[in-house]
Amino acid sequence: MIYLDNSATTYPKPQSVQSAVTSAMRTSANPGRSGHRMSLAAAETIYSARRTAARFFGMENEEKVIFTPNCTTSLNMAVKGLLQSGDHVVVSSLEHNAVMRPLERMKNQGISYTKAEVFAGNDDKTVDSFRHAMNGLTKMIVCTHASNVWGIRLPIERLCALAHAYGLLFIVDAAQSAGVIPIDMHEGYDAVCIAGHKGLYGPMGTGIMLLSENMTMKTIIEGGTGSNSFSLEQPEDLPDRFESGTPNFPGIAGLKKGIEFVESRTPEKIAAHEFRLIRYLYRKLEKLPKIKLYTPMPDERYFVPVLSFNADGHDSEEIAAILNKNGIAVRAGLHCAPNAHEAMGTLEYGAVRISPSVFTSMNDMDRLAYILSRLS
Amino acid sequence: MIYLDNSATTYPKPQSVQSAVTSAMRTSANPGRSGHRMSLAAAETIYSARRTAARFFGMENEEKVIFTPNCTTSLNMAVKGLLQSGDHVVVSSLEHNAVMRPLERMKNQGISYTKAEVFAGNDDKTVDSFRHAMNGLTKMIVCTHASNVWGIRLPIERLCALAHAYGLLFIVDAAQSAGVIPIDMHEGYDAVCIAGHKGLYGPMGTGIMLLSENMTMKTIIEGGTGSNSFSLEQPEDLPDRFESGTPNFPGIAGLKKGIEFVESRTPEKIAAHEFRLIRYLYRKLEKLPKIKLYTPMPDERYFVPVLSFNADGHDSEEIAAILNKNGIAVRAGLHCAPNAHEAMGTLEYGAVRISPSVFTSMNDMDRLAYILSRLS
Repeated sequence: MIYLDNSATTYPKPQSVQSAVTSAMRTSANPGRSGHRMSLAAAETIYSARRTAARFFGMENEEKVIFTPNCTTSLNMAVKGLLQSGDHVVVSSLEHNAVMRPLERMKNQGISYTKAEVFAGNDDKTVDSFRHAMNGLTKMIVCTHASNVWGIRLPIERLCALAHAYGLLFIVDAAQSAGVIPIDMHEGYDAVCIAGHKGLYGPMGTGIMLLSENMTMKTIIEGGTGSNSFSLEQPEDLPDRFESGTPNFPGIAGLKKGIEFVESRTPEKIAAHEFRLIRYLYRKLEKLPKIKLYTPMPDERYFVPVLSFNADGHDSEEIAAILNKNGIAVRAGLHCAPNAHEAMGTLEYGAVRISPSVFTSMNDMDRLAYILSRLS
Repeated sequence: MIYLDNSATTYPKPQSVQSAVTSAMRTSANPGRSGHRMSLAAAETIYSARRTAARFFGMENEEKVIFTPNCTTSLNMAVKGLLQSGDHVVVSSLEHNAVMRPLERMKNQGISYTKAEVFAGNDDKTVDSFRHAMNGLTKMIVCTHASNVWGIRLPIERLCALAHAYGLLFIVDAAQSAGVIPIDMHEGYDAVCIAGHKGLYGPMGTGIMLLSENMTMKTIIEGGTGSNSFSLEQPEDLPDRFESGTPNFPGIAGLKKGIEFVESRTPEKIAAHEFRLIRYLYRKLEKLPKIKLYTPMPDERYFVPVLSFNADGHDSEEIAAILNKNGIAVRAGLHCAPNAHEAMGTLEYGAVRISPSVFTSMNDMDRLAYILSRLS
């Protein structure tokens, strides 16, 4: 199968990731729970994964790398851990349901939000739009680094500076960007939420929350941490405070190898490869009369390498089904991001999304364009 | 290494579990997110795992099997999803921090709790103790099925009947019992929280929450579910309502094989094997003058096969270190359950815990007893 659904999860995983998971399954005890050799070896692997992630994201302190089950959990932890009754939040118009549904749920706690429109290709207008969405009760900006549907990239460095200029917290949903766009915690982001199984090439079941140096927050999950066990209070120390219960040890062992894989290839080169593919495809698709594209030719400054489209006279799910029959895996529909579709006027019928990985080839793009050219 | 720390996580995992994880890593896309073959195949595996768990726990409806990252998350979901400001809860005196820390945290929301003493070997007294701990504000009983430290088993069928007779909810922490003691949802438990990586022999990073037929609750985590994507409200449908974000697909694929492994061996035979080991060890240890045992000879009716002890003149961690040096893996300290130690008077120095699995042998017990017999 030609797999072009890498924004859902990257496939295949690098051999080193697969081997690390297999080896963790074969040899490992519960990390950090006991003092015997097997448990200590597992704890050392987790610690080493933490160091790898810290290095990759420009952090001095690996204790601020929190491992979570997925990016959705990271976002819930950050948003719910930091907001209080009466707070107002600014989000972009392109947020995933992993941001919108927690905020919608928190309305019953007196939390409100405003959506700021994003202007692809015009960061000044986007930053202005966020500024205008702020009010006297605004506590936080939370926004996606890049739309999982349209690939539109947000100027998070500037939005972080804006937030801090007004004394607000700045939280990033980096589900679609980590591993493809460099993320440097020296920029001062208060929390960055990451999927381990997408651009970092780790296994499903892994996520990360990166915290800035002095950041901590309320917990949404408490339990055994293997530390301060005598106390019924959740420990204050990081990362333990946010890592209750047995972690996904095989997953984290794999994620470490995934990050190392991306480090060795470099995000810059991976992005360059994927942009070549997406622009090649874009030029082919813009020549097909039935295909409707929604964004301009993707430019590294304003996009990540993801392309969504529709075809006249076909529902997006129908196109995905035709592609599936022809051995091509893509995702259609709303991609759990109705806001992003509303912003583009595609809420009713969704779109077909093409998301390549480092393993995708020009031939894959040719085959996809060929099948689409034959649509009746 | 002789591994006797199976209450932390079972080791080794059955070959079928390891193979399922490896195969899931090698072949799989994100389940339930897209309509292509690879995604549908993954979704079918998850569904099949759900059916397997439903069958194993006596449930008609596999949609009430919720996959979670670990038992701690299951417990947080159940307790926080069901309690409201002003509610009172009854817990046992043997609870793990996965129950106690969430309740302690919820005190700031006006939630209070009372600990009911457990009388090992006298279920009548234990049930009375729970009844006396109830008051007019009591909304729920949440209790462990078996102490992770002392192996003391609670009469959950009777406690469930007690709870329902008073119109209370009954939530079980089955972290240490699932796979060893049969659990039948026909008993009417409102929610049962389970670790996937202990007695069910699945990978770390897996947990389950079983819900009774008409049970639902508030969510503590919301996000994309691949369903009702147009809506910013978390869906009502189960299991989606409680499974936001990408699941630990390799883990769940492995957990399915773990449950099948236990099904094929039968929990009854696994328990019988482990009890033989623990009673054999008990008889050896009770002859050693330096060893202090805290519980009577473990009886299936009142215990699970776990044995904790101390040795005169040694800290529990010191004994664990000596055993480690001699190639035996055990866990010492508080086991994230200070209440259970407080109940036994061992809060200050903890205890050494021996927890066997289906793979443990009589030779392992002999070796352990031999090392302990040579303690100075």
